[in-house]
Amino acid sequence: MDTDPTTTNPEFYRTLWENDDVRVLEYRDVPGQETTPHEHPNTVMITLTDFDRRLSSGGGSRDVTLPAGAAVWLPAQSHSGRNTGSTPTHTILVELKHSTAADRPASLGPEI
Amino acid sequence: MDTDPTTTNPEFYRTLWENDDVRVLEYRDVPGQETTPHEHPNTVMITLTDFDRRLSSGGGSRDVTLPAGAAVWLPAQSHSGRNTGSTPTHTILVELKHSTAADRPASLGPEI
Repeated sequence: MDTDPTTTNPEFYRTLWENDDVRVLEYRDVPGQETTPHEHPNTVMITLTDFDRRLSSGGGSRDVTLPAGAAVWLPAQSHSGRNTGSTPTHTILVELKHSTAADRPASLGPEI
Repeated sequence: MDTDPTTTNPEFYRTLWENDDVRVLEYRDVPGQETTPHEHPNTVMITLTDFDRRLSSGGGSRDVTLPAGAAVWLPAQSHSGRNTGSTPTHTILVELKHSTAADRPASLGPEI
């Protein structure tokens, strides 16, 4: 099964550009919208809006609130996400193609 | 001479965090402010404001206008920059520690 978010949820994720080092995605949704399960490599995520989000994976979930203008580390993981707030979500995801941090324990959501 | 922008211009650049893969900087200035010459590794830059900027290196210069919410590739380069517009500049710079694109020709400013 292809777990690339641009395949599982092209209504939310689009590729802005990529090169040998990174693939850069844009994510947009509105309150109440929800992704299906998908997979991220080690990623730096930059937020362009404030948002509230519930991330789920297997039996677990975690609620995340982020302000616009944050830059967070999203370690490689599989999850789905739902916009649980009252504002649109708009983020940029910088996926790393040459990460050396691949063996760190996966956590649900960003490291904040 | 230390050409790291957090050393040359700590009034504009600050390190948000770093790990094995990336160093993430925040840059802020207001119209008319100017950096001294400094060096960037291969970097993904995300803009949080609209801005106009003149980049200079050696005898050359280039004017760049970017909207908020852009994600651009800044290939490794030395330059200085001046805010030539009427709006503050606010950007996030994701510096790559394991770039394989290091031998690409340097260009002045981002690839846009």
